[in-house]
Amino acid sequence: MRTIKLIIAYDGTDFSGWQVQPGKRTVQGEMTEAVSRVVGSKTSVHCSGRTDAGVHALGQVAHFQTDTSIPSKKIAEAVNSFLPDDITVKKTEEVCPEFHARFSAKSKLYCYRIFLSEIPDPFRQRYSWRFSKELDTSLMAQEIKSLEGKHDFSAFRASGSSVKSSVREVYRSQVLKRSDMVDVIMEANGFLYNMMRNVTGTLVEIGRGYFSPGSMQEILLGKDRKKAGPTAPPSGLFLLKVNY
Amino acid sequence: MRTIKLIIAYDGTDFSGWQVQPGKRTVQGEMTEAVSRVVGSKTSVHCSGRTDAGVHALGQVAHFQTDTSIPSKKIAEAVNSFLPDDITVKKTEEVCPEFHARFSAKSKLYCYRIFLSEIPDPFRQRYSWRFSKELDTSLMAQEIKSLEGKHDFSAFRASGSSVKSSVREVYRSQVLKRSDMVDVIMEANGFLYNMMRNVTGTLVEIGRGYFSPGSMQEILLGKDRKKAGPTAPPSGLFLLKVNY
Repeated sequence: MRTIKLIIAYDGTDFSGWQVQPGKRTVQGEMTEAVSRVVGSKTSVHCSGRTDAGVHALGQVAHFQTDTSIPSKKIAEAVNSFLPDDITVKKTEEVCPEFHARFSAKSKLYCYRIFLSEIPDPFRQRYSWRFSKELDTSLMAQEIKSLEGKHDFSAFRASGSSVKSSVREVYRSQVLKRSDMVDVIMEANGFLYNMMRNVTGTLVEIGRGYFSPGSMQEILLGKDRKKAGPTAPPSGLFLLKVNY
Repeated sequence: MRTIKLIIAYDGTDFSGWQVQPGKRTVQGEMTEAVSRVVGSKTSVHCSGRTDAGVHALGQVAHFQTDTSIPSKKIAEAVNSFLPDDITVKKTEEVCPEFHARFSAKSKLYCYRIFLSEIPDPFRQRYSWRFSKELDTSLMAQEIKSLEGKHDFSAFRASGSSVKSSVREVYRSQVLKRSDMVDVIMEANGFLYNMMRNVTGTLVEIGRGYFSPGSMQEILLGKDRKKAGPTAPPSGLFLLKVNY
């Protein structure tokens, strides 16, 4: 058996997330069908981590096992020919049999895009969270730095989530403003469910002056989800890269 | 009665074009409903020129007549609150009663986007025409210049079209390449049905070497639609601006 690694991009807007669900259009459902048609038998496709409905990916990673003899680089083109327009396999390569898209991942890089505008923009609404008030992005850029390093991120974990450990290590955190777009960027060894969207929701409360400076540190240490800001909508979230 | 001018942007992907059609989702249908709700009575909305299914607008112009007392600048916000996410009114203003979005227009500016890539991109497929082979964009930039000035554009008119005159004046024509995007830009006092998409299809035949240099001039003078290139798909076409 060969193990094939795929790098996948998708516009998450019209999907009910990654994971297969009966009667729903999902990325995993489309990928499984396309890969199965190419290799000629029912084949499971596993990703680095599920994304929710509406969340996008530029560099999601997945793998599957197969005994097909198709050269690994040709698989991308073949799979793409069976995929809908809103998913693309950017690259395929054969990897060692121990490779697992989820368990072998060392870190993930996410970006959350906030669009600052009083007027909606039909070309950005699928790919950002529009915010019509001013945001103090310099303050947001300072505050996010409290998250760097190894911490218990319970404060930003979706309520009702049941993962064992909520300790993660953040390697990089930035808030970048370019004209009317504000990008919240984080790289970590893992992300709790909704962590990126809850961090963004909290940053926006700070940026608009509803939470005072120093709140990010305080909320992190308090480990109480109820003290953090709201969950930002999925449309602004992009999984940029998974590192192995 | 007051006449209100609107500047409208829309992502044309999920619309069956501008014009109302029974049982179809159209931009005019959505606009008419939203405006009627705001002003409190059934109101027709007229645009500068219909766009086809899948064609986008950053600066479509429309007008309607009303006896509402709502200040003109407030109308945009009110109408937006009744519009779906893929249409936005960017601006509203009161104009003289003689203003007509179609008949008062002096010129229109269109852009057609070609995306050069062997790999599909889920974030660009709604907003461009992907072309996987190389294009000689310098040659395309030279060839399009033959269209400038006043000409009979029959060669680029949709077959079966029944407009009276096919003479139009092109004020500006450019082919601009920025990394993997090629923009075909044209401004004219009017465009025949499918003219922009037929010009683009012809330019691509020239750029990929299927038509020889000088073909644009020859095809224009020949006035025969069958000699021109294919009609480029609607996804790449944007109505940028209408001048009055």
